[in-house]
Amino acid sequence: MKHEVDLKDYKIRTDLLIDEVDTFEEKTIETEENFVDDICINSTRVLRDNAIKQKGIYTTISFQDVTDRDNFQKVQKVFEKELHKVIDNLKLKKNYKTLVIGLGNSSSTPDSLGVKVCDNIIVTRHLYELDEASKDYHNVASFTPNVMGNTGIEAQDIIRGIVEEIDLDLIIVIDALASSKIERVNKTIQLTDTGISPGSGVGNYRKEISKNILGVPVIAIGVPTVVDAAIIVSDTIDLLIKKIEYMKNNNPKEKLKARDKVNFLKEKREELNLQEKENLLGLVGSLSENDLRSLIYDVLTPIGYNMMVTPKEIDFIIEKLSLLISKGINNVLHETEI
Amino acid sequence: MKHEVDLKDYKIRTDLLIDEVDTFEEKTIETEENFVDDICINSTRVLRDNAIKQKGIYTTISFQDVTDRDNFQKVQKVFEKELHKVIDNLKLKKNYKTLVIGLGNSSSTPDSLGVKVCDNIIVTRHLYELDEASKDYHNVASFTPNVMGNTGIEAQDIIRGIVEEIDLDLIIVIDALASSKIERVNKTIQLTDTGISPGSGVGNYRKEISKNILGVPVIAIGVPTVVDAAIIVSDTIDLLIKKIEYMKNNNPKEKLKARDKVNFLKEKREELNLQEKENLLGLVGSLSENDLRSLIYDVLTPIGYNMMVTPKEIDFIIEKLSLLISKGINNVLHETEI
Amino acid sequence: MKHEVDLKDYKIRTDLLIDEVDTFEEKTIETEENFVDDICINSTRVLRDNAIKQKGIYTTISFQDVTDRDNFQKVQKVFEKELHKVIDNLKLKKNYKTLVIGLGNSSSTPDSLGVKVCDNIIVTRHLYELDEASKDYHNVASFTPNVMGNTGIEAQDIIRGIVEEIDLDLIIVIDALASSKIERVNKTIQLTDTGISPGSGVGNYRKEISKNILGVPVIAIGVPTVVDAAIIVSDTIDLLIKKIEYMKNNNPKEKLKARDKVNFLKEKREELNLQEKENLLGLVGSLSENDLRSLIYDVLTPIGYNMMVTPKEIDFIIEKLSLLISKGINNVLHETEI
Amino acid sequence: MKHEVDLKDYKIRTDLLIDEVDTFEEKTIETEENFVDDICINSTRVLRDNAIKQKGIYTTISFQDVTDRDNFQKVQKVFEKELHKVIDNLKLKKNYKTLVIGLGNSSSTPDSLGVKVCDNIIVTRHLYELDEASKDYHNVASFTPNVMGNTGIEAQDIIRGIVEEIDLDLIIVIDALASSKIERVNKTIQLTDTGISPGSGVGNYRKEISKNILGVPVIAIGVPTVVDAAIIVSDTIDLLIKKIEYMKNNNPKEKLKARDKVNFLKEKREELNLQEKENLLGLVGSLSENDLRSLIYDVLTPIGYNMMVTPKEIDFIIEKLSLLISKGINNVLHETEI
Repeated sequence: MKHEVDLKDYKIRTDLLIDEVDTFEEKTIETEENFVDDICINSTRVLRDNAIKQKGIYTTISFQDVTDRDNFQKVQKVFEKELHKVIDNLKLKKNYKTLVIGLGNSSSTPDSLGVKVCDNIIVTRHLYELDEASKDYHNVASFTPNVMGNTGIEAQDIIRGIVEEIDLDLIIVIDALASSKIERVNKTIQLTDTGISPGSGVGNYRKEISKNILGVPVIAIGVPTVVDAAIIVSDTIDLLIKKIEYMKNNNPKEKLKARDKVNFLKEKREELNLQEKENLLGLVGSLSENDLRSLIYDVLTPIGYNMMVTPKEIDFIIEKLSLLISKGINNVLHETEI
Repeated sequence: MKHEVDLKDYKIRTDLLIDEVDTFEEKTIETEENFVDDICINSTRVLRDNAIKQKGIYTTISFQDVTDRDNFQKVQKVFEKELHKVIDNLKLKKNYKTLVIGLGNSSSTPDSLGVKVCDNIIVTRHLYELDEASKDYHNVASFTPNVMGNTGIEAQDIIRGIVEEIDLDLIIVIDALASSKIERVNKTIQLTDTGISPGSGVGNYRKEISKNILGVPVIAIGVPTVVDAAIIVSDTIDLLIKKIEYMKNNNPKEKLKARDKVNFLKEKREELNLQEKENLLGLVGSLSENDLRSLIYDVLTPIGYNMMVTPKEIDFIIEKLSLLISKGINNVLHETEI
Repeated sequence: MKHEVDLKDYKIRTDLLIDEVDTFEEKTIETEENFVDDICINSTRVLRDNAIKQKGIYTTISFQDVTDRDNFQKVQKVFEKELHKVIDNLKLKKNYKTLVIGLGNSSSTPDSLGVKVCDNIIVTRHLYELDEASKDYHNVASFTPNVMGNTGIEAQDIIRGIVEEIDLDLIIVIDALASSKIERVNKTIQLTDTGISPGSGVGNYRKEISKNILGVPVIAIGVPTVVDAAIIVSDTIDLLIKKIEYMKNNNPKEKLKARDKVNFLKEKREELNLQEKENLLGLVGSLSENDLRSLIYDVLTPIGYNMMVTPKEIDFIIEKLSLLISKGINNVLHETEI
Repeated sequence: MKHEVDLKDYKIRTDLLIDEVDTFEEKTIETEENFVDDICINSTRVLRDNAIKQKGIYTTISFQDVTDRDNFQKVQKVFEKELHKVIDNLKLKKNYKTLVIGLGNSSSTPDSLGVKVCDNIIVTRHLYELDEASKDYHNVASFTPNVMGNTGIEAQDIIRGIVEEIDLDLIIVIDALASSKIERVNKTIQLTDTGISPGSGVGNYRKEISKNILGVPVIAIGVPTVVDAAIIVSDTIDLLIKKIEYMKNNNPKEKLKARDKVNFLKEKREELNLQEKENLLGLVGSLSENDLRSLIYDVLTPIGYNMMVTPKEIDFIIEKLSLLISKGINNVLHETEI
């Protein structure tokens, strides 16, 4: 029945390599996974530029709740170690000069991560210019270009202008990202040496911010803080199918406990066959995940629902994540605990 | 098949009377609708307390874009006129004293409406206390109790405390609301003389703020700024059914233009019969709207997806809406254009 | 006795031409003064560059309280008219493109004027780039470079970078200034076509922002929001002399009313002779105003008192002044009332 | 000559006991001073209520720069220890419930200390109400009543209202204070078990916040962030006298180095006799410190110079001080390092 539905080619909106890692051909990437307790560190090297991602190293740190004090510290340590690796890899000169750029919009909570990180960066470049810098601190500047809706200017244009005026060895860009998986929202930090690509983020800038454009290595640090409305719909339909299936095959009176239910849903993910899906969800059940999302997107777009989905406690989480990332950057750049 | 699915009784989360006006029995409400250009003013009198809403008058102003300058002014005039009516109805003494309370959380953009309105309220009570007030201004105080997650204290407890300490004739409470209809988000202002009921808002307070509790008339002004994730899912499924149906019955090659598509979807809303729905969406299609939402809610809850859906440009819209409401309140309370 | 005191050459810190207009040689400036009610508009043309100010036109609008509603509107109209004149004078092409730059630090109330003005500027440049601009609005971008203490980068470097990247016909820079006269604080707007000179402002940037540097005409709009601590000391000593003199010559029991006292102090300003001053204030009384300030500055500096003096209600006044200036700029640039 | 000048009784505005400790009669106070490196801890017990201060214990921690990382940590430890002592002294029950109140105005940098401290307080009361609190955290609520100019309501009225609604064992109030000594600004923390007295702070509230009024012990924590303009004038005149005296007695060519000059000025403070002072400063030199201030205040008041004096980098210092105090309170209340 699928051919009856007219689907345009809809690219699922995500800025995370890990969301798409399964779609890469085998020989185009090398992946390694390590764990510190329940924190997962996935390092993927994309071997050549392709339609999805630029060649480079993508490190994805996946964790649970950073609003828990102990976990916060564990994740911070992991983040620092991984940031150190990415920087070491660039083989910069000893006293490299860094510009930390916070993208996004301080007035929109889920998009304020980059700005909030910059609020806490220890800035010393002006002291170096005045020969008043302490030797304990490296040369660091920081900047927030704001979003085009507020300034009328692309972030990339502003950044390119500044980079031409000051002497730099490294740029670190921090940004709130979009994910295609709800479960990654606020629970993932992505570090990459490829910079920021077109179409990224909550959608407020469009031009690449990378070494190609700026002539200086660009490390991008991002956290997914929203998903597109289309994604929550298709994810829920996916879960619905599995739940109903489960209920039909089991005694409906016997309720699953929350935790069991989640595990069950995760485990059984790929097991239903097409016929079963169609019984449960009719035509919709017979669509591939990608086609379903295209259809949902197609339905939502004309109605003007340019919606984002974000947790209700987003302000508190952004506070913690921005603190974690700024502390990590300060510790690594200034090579000392602060 | 429906009986096989174990559905708990899930109350769709909305703070708008207009979302539920169809569920009232005929003789329990009186409704009147007027238009100023394309701005619709619905005045509904709920004649007796019931499970859904308290007895009182609910005025719902529905409009399009307030980011357009001309429309902004039109909506502001309508809002002022309706606020005037609600206050006149209370038959307060001539020099009534007002407390304007902004509920919500200034750190979370969609929940910041009430706080931002209070930022612009012209406050004079202290000048009256010092006998320094100009006669051009009435006696107005203003207050923002913040949310329980930040203070540890229920907004109602704080408000009750203040109301006991100062002499008042009227309370106006402003709050960001939740709607069950995406199309109402940021496009509706609800005024009511019943105050704020339990379970309202973006969910940060739970106790009623009303004349019953406080002994002073309470006018509540609210704008829906978010919908629950469960709603966007069920709305989309609803739209999906209609879209697929349309495609099956028409030449799929012939694409609908965006505007036609929206109208089509709206018009055909109730026309599909159960069998058609089941063909298209299987078991899910056979569920009533309410049961579908219960099911979705049930699926989303254990996974911890306590998500809200909000437009991407929410910061800009909140800016405009808070300006509109604060200007309106200032003009009405101080009985002069400011 | 004066020669016994070792005074370094201390330049009184002010950004206002009007504070120094008396020190210019006669033929180097042309001045004209007009009034709208009690609002004074001083237009001074500096005919050639000199040690104090660059060649150009300086318009100084002096007013009383802008927290009064009626006066606010009067001052806004005057400001708009004068801004119009300065822009007309530049003979720009018809659809000129403007960048509005807000200097200063949003975290420091008296230094936040420029940033707050930019918060309210209607920005359209991105819509022009996307060919989505309404014809009712001119091409305007806006930007806040923040201060060197927060970014590590001079504002001028950031601005120079941006100006190289985007096509512009006019730059408007807004900044909080320092005055050498307490009575001017928050009661003066200076407009000039010369840009911002070194050493200006609350002291957070040092490099010139002008047509010379940027290749685009620069209009600077400033309001003095602070005075240096040295100034309040010398002004008070000046007032003290006059008060004591008055008291000696009059019945001390007979108190002056506040208003009389102010007028008296203003009128008698220059009338005391040196001998009288010395009797009243000893050595200090015999110093010229400039030498006294140098001495005070010399005394304060080593103790690290890098202090500013500002009114206690500065937050409220900055709110009003930034609204006034942003409304004025919007109306002039977009050539329509908004 | 002094009697010729008509001086009203002007109370120098300070909230610090230490500024006035010399004016107490010998047997009315007990004082103890201790040092941790160069941090001075003065504990003064006022034995009975008097015109200046209420009976109670006042702890004054004096320190140098808290923007230095190491010093920050030292001062934090001292503050924690002293706060612990003050709380222990109250002999509260084991699981006492605390309300932390941040006074002041978040829009005015020098007055924002209390609000910024509350931003970082770990709040748990609502979790206790819901029986979801972790045993690692005590029962803490937090609240910011804002200032009367913004709300129209006295802070005390709001606080009294809240205290009546919730069950409490301890109130901690944080506030920006005024000092009469410039050198104490941002370099002193005062803790006292007497609460906040009338006339305190940057001047935005007037009614006492204390156990007498609220029925619950009130610990007040304050930092002087401003001095009155009158103080900087009289302090400078004081320094001027000494500087001129020094110059007359020494070779004026031979300049003092900054550090020597400061020490010299401090040491010679009380040594000039009246005749010398009069020679140097005439009539003004003959006035007592208090009379001079009264005179300055009398001169400044009618002209409407309601000015405060504050360091130019106040935003950065407030950031650090609020972090220090909030960390300290969190550690003490939750009895664990966070």
